[in-house]
Amino acid sequence: MKQKIQQAWQNLKTQELEGAKAQELYNQTVWPLLLELWRREPHVYPLREQFDVSIHTLGTSPEATTLAALGLGAGEVYVLHTPESKRYLEQLQRDLGRSVYPIEIGKSDVTRLYQAVGEQVRKHPGKKIALDLTSGTKAMSAGMAAAGYFLQRVYPNLRVAYVDNEAFDATLRKPVAGTERLILLPNPHEVLGDLDEHLAQELYDAREFGKAAERFVSLRRKTGQGGFDLHATACEMYKYWYALDFETALSNARRLLEFIGQDAYRNHFLVRHAGRLKEQKEGLEAIVTLLRSQNLSETKGALWLTASLIQLGNERRERQPVLAALYYYRSLELILQHRVARQGRDADSPNLSEDEQQSMRQYLGRWLGEKPENIRISGKLGLLEAVALLRHLGDSSVGFSDSDMQGYQGVLKGRNKSLLIHGLQVSKRGELEKLREFSRKLYQKAQEEAGLNPAVEPVSLS
Amino acid sequence: MKQKIQQAWQNLKTQELEGAKAQELYNQTVWPLLLELWRREPHVYPLREQFDVSIHTLGTSPEATTLAALGLGAGEVYVLHTPESKRYLEQLQRDLGRSVYPIEIGKSDVTRLYQAVGEQVRKHPGKKIALDLTSGTKAMSAGMAAAGYFLQRVYPNLRVAYVDNEAFDATLRKPVAGTERLILLPNPHEVLGDLDEHLAQELYDAREFGKAAERFVSLRRKTGQGGFDLHATACEMYKYWYALDFETALSNARRLLEFIGQDAYRNHFLVRHAGRLKEQKEGLEAIVTLLRSQNLSETKGALWLTASLIQLGNERRERQPVLAALYYYRSLELILQHRVARQGRDADSPNLSEDEQQSMRQYLGRWLGEKPENIRISGKLGLLEAVALLRHLGDSSVGFSDSDMQGYQGVLKGRNKSLLIHGLQVSKRGELEKLREFSRKLYQKAQEEAGLNPAVEPVSLS
Repeated sequence: MKQKIQQAWQNLKTQELEGAKAQELYNQTVWPLLLELWRREPHVYPLREQFDVSIHTLGTSPEATTLAALGLGAGEVYVLHTPESKRYLEQLQRDLGRSVYPIEIGKSDVTRLYQAVGEQVRKHPGKKIALDLTSGTKAMSAGMAAAGYFLQRVYPNLRVAYVDNEAFDATLRKPVAGTERLILLPNPHEVLGDLDEHLAQELYDAREFGKAAERFVSLRRKTGQGGFDLHATACEMYKYWYALDFETALSNARRLLEFIGQDAYRNHFLVRHAGRLKEQKEGLEAIVTLLRSQNLSETKGALWLTASLIQLGNERRERQPVLAALYYYRSLELILQHRVARQGRDADSPNLSEDEQQSMRQYLGRWLGEKPENIRISGKLGLLEAVALLRHLGDSSVGFSDSDMQGYQGVLKGRNKSLLIHGLQVSKRGELEKLREFSRKLYQKAQEEAGLNPAVEPVSLS
Repeated sequence: MKQKIQQAWQNLKTQELEGAKAQELYNQTVWPLLLELWRREPHVYPLREQFDVSIHTLGTSPEATTLAALGLGAGEVYVLHTPESKRYLEQLQRDLGRSVYPIEIGKSDVTRLYQAVGEQVRKHPGKKIALDLTSGTKAMSAGMAAAGYFLQRVYPNLRVAYVDNEAFDATLRKPVAGTERLILLPNPHEVLGDLDEHLAQELYDAREFGKAAERFVSLRRKTGQGGFDLHATACEMYKYWYALDFETALSNARRLLEFIGQDAYRNHFLVRHAGRLKEQKEGLEAIVTLLRSQNLSETKGALWLTASLIQLGNERRERQPVLAALYYYRSLELILQHRVARQGRDADSPNLSEDEQQSMRQYLGRWLGEKPENIRISGKLGLLEAVALLRHLGDSSVGFSDSDMQGYQGVLKGRNKSLLIHGLQVSKRGELEKLREFSRKLYQKAQEEAGLNPAVEPVSLS
């Protein structure tokens, strides 16, 4: 068969015809053979696939569309034709030996083409669909490709195809017969890492560290660039850190710093954050030490842990105020537990002397607007009581004025009533801000005094 | 000038030339005029824009590429040519009166084209870039469009363009001179809502209710379809619910049910969930009533609130076990507070009789493996103590065997030590599962007894 086609083509060439006459002879001698070949065994690159639906643009070369339809072999065939190419529909259907469904569009109306393709794709959910852009104007072909790759994000089964040829005869303005083949176009996504990197970056910025890590791992695989391992490791580190799994965060921090120390990554973007990352690794070490020793007087661990909780509160503040309140309460309590521990006391069993109780009643009375003798001090220190004790002990972190404390007392007393802790109260916006302010002030004093500046924010990846 | 062009074209036509001779005359008479026109005033649709960089495919019609480059007017011009079209580079540069930067690709090598375009786009961050696909093979044009719309997600300044014509002369195989115009292709995203809907759906499934709502609101605007208001309202309802802002969740639930009752939405997808949504609205009403009355004995509100907390725990279980533990602890405590309240008692000041204390010590002794006389019962009931009291009072929700309770006691005692509550312990996976199991069992018994089945999961939107 292939030989026959070559012969017919050679014969056509030797006639040295041009224009309409050449077309006529082509139609009579070459095309029937080509059609027979493609009906039996279409040339498809890389591999023949079975489609349920094919959608084609149709210009003034219906032969290409015929070959594409035969190569795609779909059960339903839709043809986007223009008023000018409408007249080729009959030939197309005759050559295919079946009817096709026509849809008319303007030859430059890309918007209408998008809509028509979108409609058909939507009407065939779950089906395997191919878009063939071989025939038609540049606008139609380009629009088809654009619609295809756009819709592919939603309908991953979609493929874009066209009929190519190995040799084109410029005089006859036809592909050299027998060299035609249907190409399933590669998806840019398979080739270009840009989108993955962009999405990974977006996920990272949205604090979706786990999902960002997955993207970076896939980029590593797709591009073979080891540098993405560093991004992925940074994501893992923050993912566990923000989930309060400090041990796993630490092992990722260590791994990241090892990477950064390697010569291969001297010019890696993250190297410019090496100093900050080293501090964060040391901060995580201090937190892990604190959690293991349960010794609340350890300043570095307590401050880094408090800073982490405040950061978590800040991130939930807008969208999840109830949860943010929990983080702020816990950070506040933690810094008080720490300061009490530094005074050699335990907030859960403070063993208060009579003197201390007396003094605390004075403070609490002033802050709560009660008579000191009406104040009862229980076994464990609540938030307000811890502030009172620290005040009595001359702790520098609690140097608030009485009127300040009168402003804060309500929200401090409210801790146990809060929905996520023990009660049924949902913090109001104003209360949340007060809580945040108080916890930050306490933390700042403790942090300045210790000469530490825990920077818990994720480093920039872009 | 336009008249001159028309005259030259008419003159060409009257010669009735074909092929190379026609081309020669075109080059001598028509093309210089066309060039002069486009140098001065290129025809661009919809509007002329200033680009910094243009990238072109080049096939065997360099004139189209010349017009495109003039119309785009970029400071840097890159040309993707094939070995076959390399010879047109000189003419192109001569016509443009400037040099262009050539990049060779195979005429069917779409992968290489993607890479070449990707490289250039990446090399010009922040610049306004246009891709022109007019000249070249179908593969090149389609590849250019695909690359363009793919990269546009990352580089939104990218535009795809081509030179179209209002009339094409089939004999001369040229656009009728003077009807050429450069078209900036519309973005499928502007036309097709599919992607927004898909993304909104994905965000909803990922429990990103706030972001999903934004997408649905923008779909409403883009498509004018009121039905998306219902989707958006459902998203808002769950967003506030999951952020524990029950009042706002409730007002959205009410709004959603009003929508559903309207004739206009009789066939809306969400109508099939009307029953479930009505139940959820009533559940939210019960929670709001509970939070307002602070009366823990209200069964419906307590069960819906508990179910919400368990659901939040379940969703955090894999990725944020420390936070999940908090939700489970709170749900467990809440159901105990509720059962204690139903017995007419208050878990915070239970006023235990001597008998009750005696009995509780027996239970606690067996569960903790201690002598009853060593058990101290404090003023407020902890989790274990609440279980012991309920057991003594014959409450049906706590019918656990002693050996079960021996298994659970560790994790119940651990509540206050947990990092987000009062201590420095990070729950281990096994502890978390135990906690989850215990809280679920208690909840299930209470729920079965009440004949309620709170379904707090978001309804499906797809």
